[in-house]
Amino acid sequence: MEFTAQKIAEMLHGEIEGDPTILVHNISKIEEGKVGTLAFLANPKYENYIYNTKASVVLVNKTFSTEKKIETTLIKVDNAYSAFASLLEIYQQLKGNKQGISPQAFIHESATIGQNVYIEAFAYVGENAIVGNNTKIYGHSYLGDNTQVGSDCTLYAGVKIYEDCVIGNSCIFHAGVVIGSDGFGFAPVDNDYKKIPQIGNVIVEDHVEMGANTTIDRATMGSTVIRKGVKLDNQIQVAHNVEIGENTVIAALTGISGSTKIGKNCMIGGQVGFAGHIQIADEVKIGAQAGVASSIKQKGMILLGTPAIEVRNFQRSSIVFKQLPELLKRVGVIEKKSIKTE
Amino acid sequence: MEFTAQKIAEMLHGEIEGDPTILVHNISKIEEGKVGTLAFLANPKYENYIYNTKASVVLVNKTFSTEKKIETTLIKVDNAYSAFASLLEIYQQLKGNKQGISPQAFIHESATIGQNVYIEAFAYVGENAIVGNNTKIYGHSYLGDNTQVGSDCTLYAGVKIYEDCVIGNSCIFHAGVVIGSDGFGFAPVDNDYKKIPQIGNVIVEDHVEMGANTTIDRATMGSTVIRKGVKLDNQIQVAHNVEIGENTVIAALTGISGSTKIGKNCMIGGQVGFAGHIQIADEVKIGAQAGVASSIKQKGMILLGTPAIEVRNFQRSSIVFKQLPELLKRVGVIEKKSIKTE
Amino acid sequence: MEFTAQKIAEMLHGEIEGDPTILVHNISKIEEGKVGTLAFLANPKYENYIYNTKASVVLVNKTFSTEKKIETTLIKVDNAYSAFASLLEIYQQLKGNKQGISPQAFIHESATIGQNVYIEAFAYVGENAIVGNNTKIYGHSYLGDNTQVGSDCTLYAGVKIYEDCVIGNSCIFHAGVVIGSDGFGFAPVDNDYKKIPQIGNVIVEDHVEMGANTTIDRATMGSTVIRKGVKLDNQIQVAHNVEIGENTVIAALTGISGSTKIGKNCMIGGQVGFAGHIQIADEVKIGAQAGVASSIKQKGMILLGTPAIEVRNFQRSSIVFKQLPELLKRVGVIEKKSIKTE
Repeated sequence: MEFTAQKIAEMLHGEIEGDPTILVHNISKIEEGKVGTLAFLANPKYENYIYNTKASVVLVNKTFSTEKKIETTLIKVDNAYSAFASLLEIYQQLKGNKQGISPQAFIHESATIGQNVYIEAFAYVGENAIVGNNTKIYGHSYLGDNTQVGSDCTLYAGVKIYEDCVIGNSCIFHAGVVIGSDGFGFAPVDNDYKKIPQIGNVIVEDHVEMGANTTIDRATMGSTVIRKGVKLDNQIQVAHNVEIGENTVIAALTGISGSTKIGKNCMIGGQVGFAGHIQIADEVKIGAQAGVASSIKQKGMILLGTPAIEVRNFQRSSIVFKQLPELLKRVGVIEKKSIKTE
Repeated sequence: MEFTAQKIAEMLHGEIEGDPTILVHNISKIEEGKVGTLAFLANPKYENYIYNTKASVVLVNKTFSTEKKIETTLIKVDNAYSAFASLLEIYQQLKGNKQGISPQAFIHESATIGQNVYIEAFAYVGENAIVGNNTKIYGHSYLGDNTQVGSDCTLYAGVKIYEDCVIGNSCIFHAGVVIGSDGFGFAPVDNDYKKIPQIGNVIVEDHVEMGANTTIDRATMGSTVIRKGVKLDNQIQVAHNVEIGENTVIAALTGISGSTKIGKNCMIGGQVGFAGHIQIADEVKIGAQAGVASSIKQKGMILLGTPAIEVRNFQRSSIVFKQLPELLKRVGVIEKKSIKTE
Repeated sequence: MEFTAQKIAEMLHGEIEGDPTILVHNISKIEEGKVGTLAFLANPKYENYIYNTKASVVLVNKTFSTEKKIETTLIKVDNAYSAFASLLEIYQQLKGNKQGISPQAFIHESATIGQNVYIEAFAYVGENAIVGNNTKIYGHSYLGDNTQVGSDCTLYAGVKIYEDCVIGNSCIFHAGVVIGSDGFGFAPVDNDYKKIPQIGNVIVEDHVEMGANTTIDRATMGSTVIRKGVKLDNQIQVAHNVEIGENTVIAALTGISGSTKIGKNCMIGGQVGFAGHIQIADEVKIGAQAGVASSIKQKGMILLGTPAIEVRNFQRSSIVFKQLPELLKRVGVIEKKSIKTE
């Protein structure tokens, strides 16, 4: 895709200073600008870069005035940052604007496929599966039997959804996401284990995004539930019968054990571990690598450490941890004195 | 699938109280029962639910007697819980009872395919690979050259098995499992690294289950070995030349470094890390997020923490950890006093 | 593949003692030798095994002389270990010497494909993608639109590379690697989150190896960069705009948060976590499960623990950690005495 400065100025209701015919085919940071790209200048700290940038076009605030000669073409707008953000969205939409069903996809004759979908080669859509309007399914993605995927979703390459799972609208799943694998349930029988059938499913509500290679197990019975607006980073593990509340955000490599319920609007760091069968209140924040062994009832609490404790408490104790050998010596010294004193 | 209460009662050798013609097409918990589903009541704590449940059929113990009027149809059996478990298994078997080889699968002409197998579209079976009887291979699964997979296995969508690996009977691998990738072996040469060829393989014995996106590296030489009955959760990493003993169970996101041998009947929590070249005795239990840096020789030991120590020791030290800033102050106070005393 | 002892001796410029016509089709350790395999003896500790090994051929140093009768055929070389290493490489090359493009692969008509490539069934090569000479792409691998992959690369089964990413020469990506998934970027808007478009890409330089199911997110703008010679183990997570310096080696399950820069020739253990927006100096070593919360400016520093501190400091403090309950008691005893003394 290539646009003239003129065309971009029109999209953003901006004014051009410079060459309206200059062409732009990509976006760059102002400090790394290259010919043929568009950058923006919002933070005055970066103002110096505008005089040397190789970017062909720079979005600036209307209030910006040049102090020296400038090579690049300017587009002046009310708010350079938000204009740039709008442009990004337009760019994404144009780029992702694919349609059509590949003849090399497998779509079971009983499946229901919406309008304006995009389904690539080697995608697999099982028996009685339902795919909503405008949804995109990339190569090597797999929808098991009876799976429902809503409208306006994007399933990148290699997403695997097991049978009977239900996905809402406007969800984005990145490559390698697995939804609906069996929960980890085994009944000990002597020294051996017997598999407990996992007959539940996974329900994912609207506007959920999941990062690459994240896995969500199906419920033993009932549903593992990912509520509206939840954002999961890469390589997160969600066990059977977990529930994650609305708009909760979780960073990479975190694991949540079976039947745990996490509240709304929580923020969870990377590599955090949650024990099973616990409840986490709304708006709780948990720092990276923490281990949460028991329920957290207080809304908005901030925790850190393994076992996780209140954040300032953990930080203070960590400082003393570094001094432990010295503390041990000091206690030894006092003990000796105290013996002498006796 | 849909069954009458009558049909289910026959399968379970139970007695009907209510409507023998009522239809059931799914299973539910008694507290979340819906029309058309079957639930069970074994725990007296849940007895109240039976009077309001929407479940069409409920399995109950023969000893159960109603106190009020009941809407639902009852099936009375000797043991409601075990009857329910049997029913789950029948349900699973019927559901998983797929057969046939898709013409859209790739099966090398030199491969040997058993009887009653199920191979979906886009599955790949390489040169000289062997697939046992009744085994199911879902879409996008990959068997490298010379791979052997036993009978009665299930490989869900997107399982990747590299060349020369050997899988036993009755194994279940979930979506995204990788078996036989190269061990992480590099010889430092100046500031650079030279790859050490990884020419061993992976051997997985019978009745092993592996969760979604778990990875098992092939041995440098010889075999990485997963013994009979091992159960691995999702996103576990097993390095080259590791051996995991019979019936050991490991939770999600745990990593085992190269050449480590884990004993039989161990229970390992989530996000645990094992150093390389160590031995873990049989029946050892290791809590979540522990870091095991050296061999554990004592059978049945229970450990926690990084570095992992005996569990009660860790718990007691963790309690003091929270009090460290206060402890530091107390020592300071004593020191001052002790100086005055001198 | 099968070779005579004679043929192998020729390749290694060695001398035969025994049967030059004996056949070898695989490699084994001397202590686990089987008929039809070749082993080597370099370490005198293993000398006893040579008298009982079932290996058909054993490579030995020229200086080696037998004390008793030997069944196996010997090949005497200057350096048995390095001769064996050369043999491994020859073996790997022969094994990996596949060529040809499967008619069941999908290759967009606009893609550019080099010479002597190997592309398996169900591989996907998108619009304007470029694949260099001698590169191997296994089944279910995916190259998005405009992706460039250099020469002499191997992409094992199920590697997913998103659009616009650039991969150098001589790279090896194991099964399930994901490159170019969206960075985890959301702007809070009230209680909701708005996705920040991730329009950058990933650049991977030459001689990089990545383990199974490792994930590398694309940059928000600009590039996530993996420098020359970097070796990543399995299930590593690299966030947007991260840069990893030349020849740095990272073990499994480690996570690196957004915009962090890691130096050259670092060695990072497994399950380590890095905060975002920090810098790590060259040649730094970080032990397994450490949590690195702030920049490390000192070259060659060795760290451990969460939060990570200098390794000996951590080890000394860990020893005292185990004694904390006792230390608490000792302080209590002193306090009582000190009160009595007053």
